[in-house]
Amino acid sequence: MTFFASKWVDRPGHVTELAPTALPEGFVAGAVAAGIKPDGQDVGLLFSEREHTTSAVRFTSNALVAAPVTVARDETDQAALRAVTVNSGNANVSDGDRGLRTARAQQQAAAEALDLEPAQVAVASTGVIARELPRDKAVAGIRHAAESLGPNAQAFSEAILTTDNGPKRACLELALPSGDTVRLAGQAKGGGMISPRFATMLCFVQTDAALAPQTVDLLTGVCVKRSFDRISVDGQLSTNDAVFVLANGASGVQVEPESPDELAVGEAMDALLRQLALEMVADGEGASRVGRVVVRGGVDSVGPVARAVANSPLVKTALAGADPNFGRILQAVGQGLAGRAAFDIDLAVDGLPVVKGGAMVELDYPDDWVKVEASFAADEVEFDLRVPGEGGEAEVFFSDLTHEYVTINADYTT
Amino acid sequence: MTFFASKWVDRPGHVTELAPTALPEGFVAGAVAAGIKPDGQDVGLLFSEREHTTSAVRFTSNALVAAPVTVARDETDQAALRAVTVNSGNANVSDGDRGLRTARAQQQAAAEALDLEPAQVAVASTGVIARELPRDKAVAGIRHAAESLGPNAQAFSEAILTTDNGPKRACLELALPSGDTVRLAGQAKGGGMISPRFATMLCFVQTDAALAPQTVDLLTGVCVKRSFDRISVDGQLSTNDAVFVLANGASGVQVEPESPDELAVGEAMDALLRQLALEMVADGEGASRVGRVVVRGGVDSVGPVARAVANSPLVKTALAGADPNFGRILQAVGQGLAGRAAFDIDLAVDGLPVVKGGAMVELDYPDDWVKVEASFAADEVEFDLRVPGEGGEAEVFFSDLTHEYVTINADYTT
Repeated sequence: MTFFASKWVDRPGHVTELAPTALPEGFVAGAVAAGIKPDGQDVGLLFSEREHTTSAVRFTSNALVAAPVTVARDETDQAALRAVTVNSGNANVSDGDRGLRTARAQQQAAAEALDLEPAQVAVASTGVIARELPRDKAVAGIRHAAESLGPNAQAFSEAILTTDNGPKRACLELALPSGDTVRLAGQAKGGGMISPRFATMLCFVQTDAALAPQTVDLLTGVCVKRSFDRISVDGQLSTNDAVFVLANGASGVQVEPESPDELAVGEAMDALLRQLALEMVADGEGASRVGRVVVRGGVDSVGPVARAVANSPLVKTALAGADPNFGRILQAVGQGLAGRAAFDIDLAVDGLPVVKGGAMVELDYPDDWVKVEASFAADEVEFDLRVPGEGGEAEVFFSDLTHEYVTINADYTT
Repeated sequence: MTFFASKWVDRPGHVTELAPTALPEGFVAGAVAAGIKPDGQDVGLLFSEREHTTSAVRFTSNALVAAPVTVARDETDQAALRAVTVNSGNANVSDGDRGLRTARAQQQAAAEALDLEPAQVAVASTGVIARELPRDKAVAGIRHAAESLGPNAQAFSEAILTTDNGPKRACLELALPSGDTVRLAGQAKGGGMISPRFATMLCFVQTDAALAPQTVDLLTGVCVKRSFDRISVDGQLSTNDAVFVLANGASGVQVEPESPDELAVGEAMDALLRQLALEMVADGEGASRVGRVVVRGGVDSVGPVARAVANSPLVKTALAGADPNFGRILQAVGQGLAGRAAFDIDLAVDGLPVVKGGAMVELDYPDDWVKVEASFAADEVEFDLRVPGEGGEAEVFFSDLTHEYVTINADYTT
């Protein structure tokens, strides 16, 4: 079974899949059960053994950020991280100064265990919010995790999970145009509080290519915009979202800016992050299927319309019910364009036109209906919309809204 | 049992409740089963017998509007309506010219039956969207409904329902400061696709006071802003929302602009519409309880924050689970302020401070926790938020998100 399971992501031709828990050269990871969650591993540590490691990070845009985000964003050298420590079970949000001191204690503990400066260590947390994160457990967990480091990401990728149904991870080998070979790996989590913009998600990416700091930052920015920035489970922007990309050069392969090799690394990272993002949506809390909405039209219209469709609970429940209720898509489009006069839109479902000029197409019975119903019942369904105007295009991947979402979220802290 | 059942709406002192299906003098209504719905009454007609009737209307701001909204908005004299015809079971949306011709045929049939000009008749529809509304059934229904007209709104208020659990209606007698007495009645429907701004809702209001057209319009505007404009079931802005207010003067009481009598009519209409709006939220699809969020702070902040909290599926599911998960409220506040730096907020639940300066308050155990848990388990719970800035205040009433919402909406058309 390929990692690239979505119909919307192709494995690039120069990419080979390794064991999904493998790591690039010079990276080690580990995890332990520290007692923050009722059971299971909940503290993880990721470490680049190479001194000359470059890095890039991206964080949530929520005005309320978790203490670890504050520390990772404001109290590290974002371009030269060597390690990240992460805990699940508690997101360390809204605990004031005490929460900040706990995040700094985590950073300090990891730095001491790995013989680094604190500014070389980022911190990430995920789990219940507005509860005190037990500092002693978190710090003790980091010390133990440091003793468990090894050249694979199995425990690490599992310790970061919360309501996820399973780990999201891959390790790829890239045959570069220059003839060199490098590795690229990623481990992610995210199932709820997944937002229009990136998500209640954490993602850790490693490569043993040598990349200039500007190159890591550029690739990270472009790839995050096309992946975690384009997914929605419940439209909720998290307080803890973070992406960390580390490049340590352990392969001995230097990838130069604007070279064919850089393009090949970028293509692979794009496919990796898009597939990880799609796994978050498919594993969205209670999700049973994934929709992709692609909107073409006016530059100012396409974004709001794509978000309005992807976040509509009426569209999401129709998808859950495998119910080809186009009207709800049109209603959401109209809401995305609220206050504007024009309503001349086209809609196609998996390529079959069902609305033209704002009015329903008379579908052939029964053939077209069979097709449409099959689309709504499939694991992945695509909605192509054209709205007035030219020059803009936006996509969002979204999950459906099921009973299971309500079950998970109506009883999460208790 | 009083109509004013919500803790957030008081019966004004000058208001007496009559039978909820009563109508003011000079109004008649009727309804029939025309076969648009599988069973039950689905075509209603409301008529003012007085020639000098004034009126005001408000419609959805969705860019996609139903054909009846187009006709009622663009092809009537909005300030001098004498009648409204309404059908449930089919919203007549996205059917192009055919849908428009059907809405006009409804208007024409009502005008003929009541000996009016078409411009004196408004049309409203609610139900499934993006399906053809059977014109013959709708028109025949109007003719039969005209034969059933009588001085009460029982059948009319029931024919407008869709997923509502019951009718929403009241008739009030107002003792005015001048010593005169007038009546004010309202019939409403709405349970889903209830939006930030008013709602998938229809509301018909009648008074036998004589009001200048500007007075009807002013009172309607103010009262709609404080009621249907402040509720959210699922954050979805409907294609068919409409409010119709008719004043026919049959009481012989002229209410002058800026008089104490006008204020008294306005107070009563405000209470009527707020209670009807709250009934929509309480009867929101699958709703088990109602929250009110009140936000005070910067003028530009309070509205987005109130909407973000009211529309958050995480807040709504916490409420469904009677789970005092403050963190989700903070997360939603932060999302409402996304991109801004400040995060210094206070939160009180039913008056008990639980967050100060963005950090959790250490609650007394067990007394405070008992109070908070009781608040989250009550029928109505209030969240008071203070965000940075001064001079702004916004409220939104919202329902929780339950399994029943998913059940209703995952299988609505099929």
